[in-house]
Amino acid sequence: MSSPIRVTVWNEFIHERQNKVVQAIYPEGIHATIAKALSAAGDVLVRTATQDQPEHGLTDEVLEQTDVLIWWGHKGHEGVEDAVVEKVHRKVLAGMGLIALHSAHFSKIFRRLMGTNCSLKWRVADEKERLWNLEPSHPIAAGIGDYFELPHEEMYGERFDIPTPETLVFMGWFEGGEVFRSGCCWHRGHGRIFYFQPGHESYPTYHDANVQRIILNAVRWAVPRVNIPFACPQAKPLELIKK
Amino acid sequence: MSSPIRVTVWNEFIHERQNKVVQAIYPEGIHATIAKALSAAGDVLVRTATQDQPEHGLTDEVLEQTDVLIWWGHKGHEGVEDAVVEKVHRKVLAGMGLIALHSAHFSKIFRRLMGTNCSLKWRVADEKERLWNLEPSHPIAAGIGDYFELPHEEMYGERFDIPTPETLVFMGWFEGGEVFRSGCCWHRGHGRIFYFQPGHESYPTYHDANVQRIILNAVRWAVPRVNIPFACPQAKPLELIKK
Amino acid sequence: MSSPIRVTVWNEFIHERQNKVVQAIYPEGIHATIAKALSAAGDVLVRTATQDQPEHGLTDEVLEQTDVLIWWGHKGHEGVEDAVVEKVHRKVLAGMGLIALHSAHFSKIFRRLMGTNCSLKWRVADEKERLWNLEPSHPIAAGIGDYFELPHEEMYGERFDIPTPETLVFMGWFEGGEVFRSGCCWHRGHGRIFYFQPGHESYPTYHDANVQRIILNAVRWAVPRVNIPFACPQAKPLELIKK
Amino acid sequence: MSSPIRVTVWNEFIHERQNKVVQAIYPEGIHATIAKALSAAGDVLVRTATQDQPEHGLTDEVLEQTDVLIWWGHKGHEGVEDAVVEKVHRKVLAGMGLIALHSAHFSKIFRRLMGTNCSLKWRVADEKERLWNLEPSHPIAAGIGDYFELPHEEMYGERFDIPTPETLVFMGWFEGGEVFRSGCCWHRGHGRIFYFQPGHESYPTYHDANVQRIILNAVRWAVPRVNIPFACPQAKPLELIKK
Repeated sequence: MSSPIRVTVWNEFIHERQNKVVQAIYPEGIHATIAKALSAAGDVLVRTATQDQPEHGLTDEVLEQTDVLIWWGHKGHEGVEDAVVEKVHRKVLAGMGLIALHSAHFSKIFRRLMGTNCSLKWRVADEKERLWNLEPSHPIAAGIGDYFELPHEEMYGERFDIPTPETLVFMGWFEGGEVFRSGCCWHRGHGRIFYFQPGHESYPTYHDANVQRIILNAVRWAVPRVNIPFACPQAKPLELIKK
Repeated sequence: MSSPIRVTVWNEFIHERQNKVVQAIYPEGIHATIAKALSAAGDVLVRTATQDQPEHGLTDEVLEQTDVLIWWGHKGHEGVEDAVVEKVHRKVLAGMGLIALHSAHFSKIFRRLMGTNCSLKWRVADEKERLWNLEPSHPIAAGIGDYFELPHEEMYGERFDIPTPETLVFMGWFEGGEVFRSGCCWHRGHGRIFYFQPGHESYPTYHDANVQRIILNAVRWAVPRVNIPFACPQAKPLELIKK
Repeated sequence: MSSPIRVTVWNEFIHERQNKVVQAIYPEGIHATIAKALSAAGDVLVRTATQDQPEHGLTDEVLEQTDVLIWWGHKGHEGVEDAVVEKVHRKVLAGMGLIALHSAHFSKIFRRLMGTNCSLKWRVADEKERLWNLEPSHPIAAGIGDYFELPHEEMYGERFDIPTPETLVFMGWFEGGEVFRSGCCWHRGHGRIFYFQPGHESYPTYHDANVQRIILNAVRWAVPRVNIPFACPQAKPLELIKK
Repeated sequence: MSSPIRVTVWNEFIHERQNKVVQAIYPEGIHATIAKALSAAGDVLVRTATQDQPEHGLTDEVLEQTDVLIWWGHKGHEGVEDAVVEKVHRKVLAGMGLIALHSAHFSKIFRRLMGTNCSLKWRVADEKERLWNLEPSHPIAAGIGDYFELPHEEMYGERFDIPTPETLVFMGWFEGGEVFRSGCCWHRGHGRIFYFQPGHESYPTYHDANVQRIILNAVRWAVPRVNIPFACPQAKPLELIKK
């Protein structure tokens, strides 16, 4: 039997402490809900980390023991220390998986990996989203039907300022009239990155079975295949160079 | 008649002042050689900027008047101020073209746009490079044959740690046994980026007619189509949202 | 002044002769409406061809004089001769541009170039489509706003079975709840291909100013840069091979 | 324990019967050598099929029991029946994996899936090839070092007329001066496709440990995730359409 996938679910954990609506939905925090869902899978070993912890809970030791990092942030983006972002960035390029959720589109780590603004249109209006499954053969879409619906989600609309996704797995249709590239895959360095749009804090999105299944699928997809640190070596010639 | 393309050729301009070999090849600097070649085209209006100038010669005024920025750096990467990099980054995402030459693979601006290490293998051994033209229909390959050769070039070898290029125009074959993705295109934000590998300071690469032609082609390809500043607007619904 | 772009607008021209509703919208055929709009641009020289003509109007002479071929077909797909498809295919691979409109997703030529089924969901229900502009810096989006609307269009919905587009310029939102990759670019061989979804025969889509602008933009984008016929040459070595 | 991957190794099996040099290297045929290597892996159940068999050995029953099809062809391309190609094509689009080896670049099935000429430069001159590993984190590169060498291989050189690979895993350096995209991945429909360049019949390439490892890796990568037959359904609206 193969060893379990070691996942760290990172959450800024701010809204849940300040806002009663959010607290009612996620009494122990968004990270706890996601962690619980992943733990039930059997092949995932989950820990959590939050922004208020020393080094935001992402010490060298924790990162060394992390195969896939899940990131939820919103209000606290600017407060995330550059040194921690730098370490996470290096780790992704070496092979660690990263799953950026919802408002993490504006997190320092996601923007650094993308190299773009990662801006978008937005609106909180209790509207319906329908997510279309464009790639049923992709591992992240395993078990997901032709589409699924979220009765209420924050609208995120195009143009989403990202590098063209290598794979566009899900596309969102919004009741208010917009569309969005809601599930996107990239490789950066030796690491795999998945961005997944649903998850506004005031809606019970992370309790949704399809959303939980997709995050679990993404964890399995993003598991590191290698761990290759940075190097830029001078190389001896392999063939004779004529003088 | 359309207005000329406004190009700024940026060079750290260090090797040419410190090293007699380089000085002999580029007495007025690599930027001057490139600028002269581009000026001869007729449709390009060129200025130059160097690292030792205030704001590295990239003031707001200069950037506002720049359609395409060409970048050559090597020894001075770390000395480039973050504030200038930030401005250039924003400008590229808004639409400005960027051509990163040779050792600019490790420049702050290129790494920020790529989001990866941009590392590679390297060797200076007076060896031959042959650049193969993979996309003869691409505007950057206009007028370039099936391949062309540089009698001496620094070896840059794979793995080049970059996001998969959207278009791979040139691939390098090195006498010493390596290969390299030598001409690569990306879009980031609304801007176009071309990386071109030849150009070691101790070889007369920028005097080569094929190299000059490719840089000119890249300038024409990278010209901005829009100028769209950063925005992340809250959007009113376009359709009625049911309550 | 550069010479005009030579466009051939090909139409099966069946619905317009059989159906009074379609006839009322396109009395001289869809091809005539498109041709008239393109002709007004000044830099385009347009001819038309229809399925009932000898060789479907696509003789060697016509193809030799065609820079960009626009294709509208629906009921007559199976009746298009394989020999003509073969010739058009070869011409695209050599450099000719191809713009496949609406139900041409199922044309022999488009399927041959894509290598996939090109299947989709569909519905004719007089519903609204809103097309979102994902790449305002792309030449095909020149002059198009953030989005535009068609009051009535046939619904084409995902999953659209195509190779992942190299550039996804437009994404469609449908009133009935679906999304669609409505404007897609690919390169095949040395030719450029644009698929554009709007254009059901019973709606006045090709009279729409945005649609006309996009087709004109696509023509300019798809213009051939080269004309390179098929070859698979045995090549002499460029370097000494050790024995 | 999961069920084994069912692989069919298809070979035209012509050179081995006509040419003593080839016979000496592959006395039971290229297919037998590949099948033996795959069988040793433990998780693969292999059968073989050859062109001279009824339906080329690819009956409905065989295809139904095939997860991944490996294809080696050269002299017999034109003799492969279109009806068989059509069936294989449909099966790949529904989810079956396909691994096209060496001269299969010109097979009917590969060309149909690519939509391009799949032409290239070539030369048989007993020269060395070095294959560079561009994506060490890709499953197909598992266990492969920075590069590996084949003392003698047929030269295949650019431009290789293929759609831009979604992932370029290996790049070949040839002693005679050329380069080649030697290991390329695509998705078409719901199926995965890998093209792998080494394997000229007069060299013992399929006895090489790295080559065998890569083919095994590709089999595991290409295993179907779904089996979705062709459909182009009329769809009921999911939302109310205003009249």
